[in-house]
Amino acid sequence: MKFNSDSRILIVGLGLMGGSYAQAFSLKGYEVGAVARRQETIDYGLENGLISSGVTEVTREYVEKFDIIVFALYPHTFIEWIEKYQDYFHPGVLLTDVTGVKESVVYKVQSILREDVEFVGAHPMAGREVSGVKYATKDIFKGANYIVTPTEKNTGEAIEACKEIGRTLGCKTIKTLSPKEHDEMIGFLSQLTHCIAVSLMVCKESEHLVDYTGDSFRDLTRIARINDEMWSELFLLNKEELLRQMDLFSEKFNELRSYIENDDREGMRDIMRLATKRRGFFDKNK
Amino acid sequence: MKFNSDSRILIVGLGLMGGSYAQAFSLKGYEVGAVARRQETIDYGLENGLISSGVTEVTREYVEKFDIIVFALYPHTFIEWIEKYQDYFHPGVLLTDVTGVKESVVYKVQSILREDVEFVGAHPMAGREVSGVKYATKDIFKGANYIVTPTEKNTGEAIEACKEIGRTLGCKTIKTLSPKEHDEMIGFLSQLTHCIAVSLMVCKESEHLVDYTGDSFRDLTRIARINDEMWSELFLLNKEELLRQMDLFSEKFNELRSYIENDDREGMRDIMRLATKRRGFFDKNK
Repeated sequence: MKFNSDSRILIVGLGLMGGSYAQAFSLKGYEVGAVARRQETIDYGLENGLISSGVTEVTREYVEKFDIIVFALYPHTFIEWIEKYQDYFHPGVLLTDVTGVKESVVYKVQSILREDVEFVGAHPMAGREVSGVKYATKDIFKGANYIVTPTEKNTGEAIEACKEIGRTLGCKTIKTLSPKEHDEMIGFLSQLTHCIAVSLMVCKESEHLVDYTGDSFRDLTRIARINDEMWSELFLLNKEELLRQMDLFSEKFNELRSYIENDDREGMRDIMRLATKRRGFFDKNK
Repeated sequence: MKFNSDSRILIVGLGLMGGSYAQAFSLKGYEVGAVARRQETIDYGLENGLISSGVTEVTREYVEKFDIIVFALYPHTFIEWIEKYQDYFHPGVLLTDVTGVKESVVYKVQSILREDVEFVGAHPMAGREVSGVKYATKDIFKGANYIVTPTEKNTGEAIEACKEIGRTLGCKTIKTLSPKEHDEMIGFLSQLTHCIAVSLMVCKESEHLVDYTGDSFRDLTRIARINDEMWSELFLLNKEELLRQMDLFSEKFNELRSYIENDDREGMRDIMRLATKRRGFFDKNK
């Protein structure tokens, strides 16, 4: 369950994220294979040096060659894959993933997994607003945070190997959070912000406003361009936490609304000053 | 009431915006004067070539020299200034402004103004998250929209002169809107977005999340750094419209929330697809 220069790495799901992992590892000299649904994805990966082998049919003969398996699939596909093919893993293989929610995925996978292999959840906080292997690039990891979400089932050795994977990708900081802490953080920083951007983008027919639009509206709606299949699944898998974060936001938004409605200028200014102060903290650390 | 190369221009209020106007005009060879509260502001303007003269005390002798007067003041100060000093204007002077709300300002100023001078409202959609003459630069007008908000009291000649001011500043597009249309547009694109950013920034103690923060949260909170004195005044002066825009947003945010709560994946995906489609329109036109 170690990660070293001899490790053979299998990427399951060769999209934007899986392809970016593949490129990062291949460029560092690792042997990288892939499982993808379509042959043209494999062909692209081979032609562009992302992988040295790849299959569209999962076979024991292919899968058992690998020491590290990275799952870059939608959550429900990931769990189905484990149920269907885990017999093919060789004993001692280390599994990890890139899934954007953790509590609903990590414990489920660990509960159905064979005892002689180990899964350590991970989430590279990197991405782009586009999808598909053709956009894959190791550059998305530059400056990114890589979060490992171990549980009490994980061994120190496997957790360390998973962190080493993040460092090898080129991520800037490697952090550890519990699955619950991860989901609370991601519910706030990522899922809530996407809900806000989507709501702002659809709340009004706005095409005629293009000529007046400045940076504020563009900044707040950049992430309204969203992969609906993936994000709707991630939202539902983190539903309780996301609803809690949405309610926290609504509470403050309604508080500000009532200050405005009641001409309470001091209330407005207090909340603006707090926002300015807190935002300053994020500037400094940028 | 024309704007031509001989026009002498007075800037009242030499902050970020007034100073930027002053620099743009001075660099094009116009004679530019200024009224400011503090001598050090005038000194800075003189030393840095923004103005060729400036005063901290308003006198008839100084004010009556100018043909064009640009008010870059907070709204209530602007109206007070007109009431107090409009006797000093020479007949036929053209007044304009930079105020971020229009309906509550334009009609009020026009209603108290002498008959032999004319005020045409304007709003250069440019700015920075900092304030003060030291940040003034004509570069803020590059690519910016400049909106003229005439009323039935305005003459064609004065409206054209006001548009020419926008072109001289270097703004990209010159548009005309009624004060009401302007305020609806600004309530949505600018004020609502600032309300959202402020609410998101204060809804949770988030400093410990700095290490996990990616682009989404930073983008959505950039404008949470806000001049509370100015924005609280602008919000209240556009209260009815802003509350309407806030409610439009809340309605969609709550709709998305209920899809999530009810596991209505199709509802979520529909709204996300609409957001993606609409946002695409803004990308193309960027």
